[in-house]
Amino acid sequence: MILALAGGVGGARLAHGLAQVLDPAELMIAVNTGDDFVHLGLYVAPDIDTVMYTLAGINDPQRGWGVADETWHFMEQLAKLGGETWFQLGDRDLATNVERTRRLTQGQKLSEVTRQLCLSLGVKHSVVPMSDERVRTRVDTDQGQLDFQDYFVRRRAEPKVRGFEYVGANQAQMSAALRDCLSDPALRAVIICPSNPYLSVAPILSIPGVRNAIANAAVPRLAISPIVGGQALKGPAAKIMRELGRESSVVEVARFYRGLIDALVIDGADASLSDEIALTGITPLVTSTVMRDANDRRQLAENVVGFCEQCRLQDVRSAEA
Amino acid sequence: MILALAGGVGGARLAHGLAQVLDPAELMIAVNTGDDFVHLGLYVAPDIDTVMYTLAGINDPQRGWGVADETWHFMEQLAKLGGETWFQLGDRDLATNVERTRRLTQGQKLSEVTRQLCLSLGVKHSVVPMSDERVRTRVDTDQGQLDFQDYFVRRRAEPKVRGFEYVGANQAQMSAALRDCLSDPALRAVIICPSNPYLSVAPILSIPGVRNAIANAAVPRLAISPIVGGQALKGPAAKIMRELGRESSVVEVARFYRGLIDALVIDGADASLSDEIALTGITPLVTSTVMRDANDRRQLAENVVGFCEQCRLQDVRSAEA
Repeated sequence: MILALAGGVGGARLAHGLAQVLDPAELMIAVNTGDDFVHLGLYVAPDIDTVMYTLAGINDPQRGWGVADETWHFMEQLAKLGGETWFQLGDRDLATNVERTRRLTQGQKLSEVTRQLCLSLGVKHSVVPMSDERVRTRVDTDQGQLDFQDYFVRRRAEPKVRGFEYVGANQAQMSAALRDCLSDPALRAVIICPSNPYLSVAPILSIPGVRNAIANAAVPRLAISPIVGGQALKGPAAKIMRELGRESSVVEVARFYRGLIDALVIDGADASLSDEIALTGITPLVTSTVMRDANDRRQLAENVVGFCEQCRLQDVRSAEA
Repeated sequence: MILALAGGVGGARLAHGLAQVLDPAELMIAVNTGDDFVHLGLYVAPDIDTVMYTLAGINDPQRGWGVADETWHFMEQLAKLGGETWFQLGDRDLATNVERTRRLTQGQKLSEVTRQLCLSLGVKHSVVPMSDERVRTRVDTDQGQLDFQDYFVRRRAEPKVRGFEYVGANQAQMSAALRDCLSDPALRAVIICPSNPYLSVAPILSIPGVRNAIANAAVPRLAISPIVGGQALKGPAAKIMRELGRESSVVEVARFYRGLIDALVIDGADASLSDEIALTGITPLVTSTVMRDANDRRQLAENVVGFCEQCRLQDVRSAEA
């Protein structure tokens, strides 16, 4: 069993690749829910949906979120009615959110609702929320403390970031599936997908027990850098690094995950920074990490799974030595 | 000021006609909310929406409910997700229900929400719910006590009806606008639209004070028969009459409204039943009541308003005599 931690688009793409090369019984994708919020009375879980839609093959590849061939008649009418339109929900995407909200209101856990939605969409691999309890990412910015979606969507990630808070994390429990996976003797590796470290991965790590379980896991733990050539392939990761006074580079990603991972997978474009990464105690692994199409995803997933196997063999050899 | 009581499609059509011949300050349309129910977590108010969409000119004339040029991508996706699909909500219609639910959840009254939705859609005439409190029509049938939408939509009004209950009516207050209208010295007439007497009008009359206020109002009170030639133009009114062991005719409509109205407007097709109607103490008024198009609506509205004026003059003359 391989555990992958994933957030938004980059995470979903690698998760999709992993799902191509691993059987459903061999992969669990634990997804950030710090972005979740209640909007228009609906429980919206953007990262879960991005992973779920991507694995189902119905995601919109251009926008990066929502469903392909989407229509927007609901939003158009809502605009006419003076409703809130800063957060877009397509007509088909809306069905996911209405059905999820209905099931949650009936008392089902987010894990169970997610499992059912995945089943309905033909997703066979396990997609589990990091927690069934509410954790809300808040962004401390030069425009004040902002709810995540206020920062990310309404203000287009334009405010300057000073820090983050994962409200409710201390009181939250990791989901049963994630807990079981982390303590499963069959766990072979932990893969941190190329998601935004602060916005997608840190909320998962903020749930009590997750960071320690990974830090102490006797299995290979790899992250794939979401930064390539100093830039984020998507989203504000590099911008946030600079705003926090750090360099926007794979080295900063390594520093962020120091003490947690064994190896950082970086793109060939950043090969020259391998030595600097090694100084953090993390092994740099160089391959092509940019996922332009389904082949790229599959190839990267194969390479990453191969790296995990290499790390495992090295561990075995060091133990034997 | 003329007060019109309205329910579904027939009521909405005459309300539309009345809105063509009366200024916004001259007309208030009080609408049945006994059909309202919470579905998929949304507060759905079918009769309010039918009246509102019809007055806004955006109703679907074929289906009789919902918005014209509607799309169904939400429902299609909901079906894939295993959601409840027996009650259809189009993509545009959904916006009304989401926005209404959001505002109600914020604490706004249904009256205020309805006013805002009407304003947004350019409806200038007053459309008011019979009450801001929940009243739920329950249908006693040979298949048991059924919620209204279960009877009407899910079971297509097929169960045999034995009676009705308007749950919550005794505890409900009429909406402030309806109360003010009924006690307004400027009230000129009360018009009961050609809506289903049991399903659309009786719930309004079941709100404490409404029936008495109309019965005692010193203004002309007219109903337009929803039955023409023994048949309901739309919906199960005639079927219900037969199931209740009554004749499905304009005479039964007169009996239903006995003690409440001065005159019953019937179609020329039923002119031969005028004498029987007169025996109930209600004056039969014959005209063409079938509304096939906007011209028919306007013509019927003009005739009905004319009848009100005639009744008023007759009252004045009787008082002077």
